Amino acid sequence: MTQDAFQDTYPDQYSHCYGCGRLNEEGLHLKSRWDGDETVAIIEPRPYFTGIPEFVYGGLLASLIDCHGTGTASAAAYRAAGRPMGSEPYLRFVTASLHVDFDNPTPMGVPLELRGRIQEIKDRKVVVGVTIAAENEVVVRGEVVAVQIPDEMKTD
Amino acid sequence: MTQDAFQDTYPDQYSHCYGCGRLNEEGLHLKSRWDGDETVAIIEPRPYFTGIPEFVYGGLLASLIDCHGTGTASAAAYRAAGRPMGSEPYLRFVTASLHVDFDNPTPMGVPLELRGRIQEIKDRKVVVGVTIAAENEVVVRGEVVAVQIPDEMKTD
Repeated sequence: MTQDAFQDTYPDQYSHCYGCGRLNEEGLHLKSRWDGDETVAIIEPRPYFTGIPEFVYGGLLASLIDCHGTGTASAAAYRAAGRPMGSEPYLRFVTASLHVDFDNPTPMGVPLELRGRIQEIKDRKVVVGVTIAAENEVVVRGEVVAVQIPDEMKTD
Repeated sequence: MTQDAFQDTYPDQYSHCYGCGRLNEEGLHLKSRWDGDETVAIIEPRPYFTGIPEFVYGGLLASLIDCHGTGTASAAAYRAAGRPMGSEPYLRFVTASLHVDFDNPTPMGVPLELRGRIQEIKDRKVVVGVTIAAENEVVVRGEVVAVQIPDEMKTD
């Protein structure tokens, strides 16, 4: 995939997120891209992101779903508007609500594949379903209700 | 509060969690305690746990709710059984599902207060409602469905 990651098109002032901001030195740097009508991101958790030994920390999985969800929401909003991603005015989303079902334990030491699917897109709201798979098996399912960044959180 | 934190009573093999394990050197070391019939934990996010500038990363907030929820579930199960926390056989919980509503942006640079309330306790399942307050205002509401650790995740 040679396309830019969604997160690499965010303007600088919205690129400090711990989960996906390219300017957060300590952060996870999640990178999400289109794959047809779905979105995909691959990441292998750092060794210290363990919950129960040998299994990935649930909070990290929730975090990845959150960032892949808001990234997917932004990409979907740009696509729906027929605009190139990153063009102004910015379509940057934050999470209004997050739901995660941990169907199975997620093993450490393997890459995880996140897949996003647009469930609803309406005005300033996008609902994204996200799955996480390890070794080709879906282990976690999530849903992100993303809304365009409210005025009180804007820095531009 | 001089009582032991719930997480400090976890046996070593369940103390490596990034969010709350005392043996995870990189981790957050969340500490939860009883306050009457509620549970409380106070933590100030590290400066790099930012989402949008000046506001706390949602994934971190979800993580804190997760660990405070499972810790509360464990404490509630011990209390319901009339047993001292940490006594064997261990009552250690993992998260089956997590829901988070981000009602308002959470400011950086202040301590956050998590409060847990037992909503349901039945067999191997405990449902915990968790709020996060900043400067005495509830900004995030969550719910954790916690289940006793399944056999395939046990290390003892």
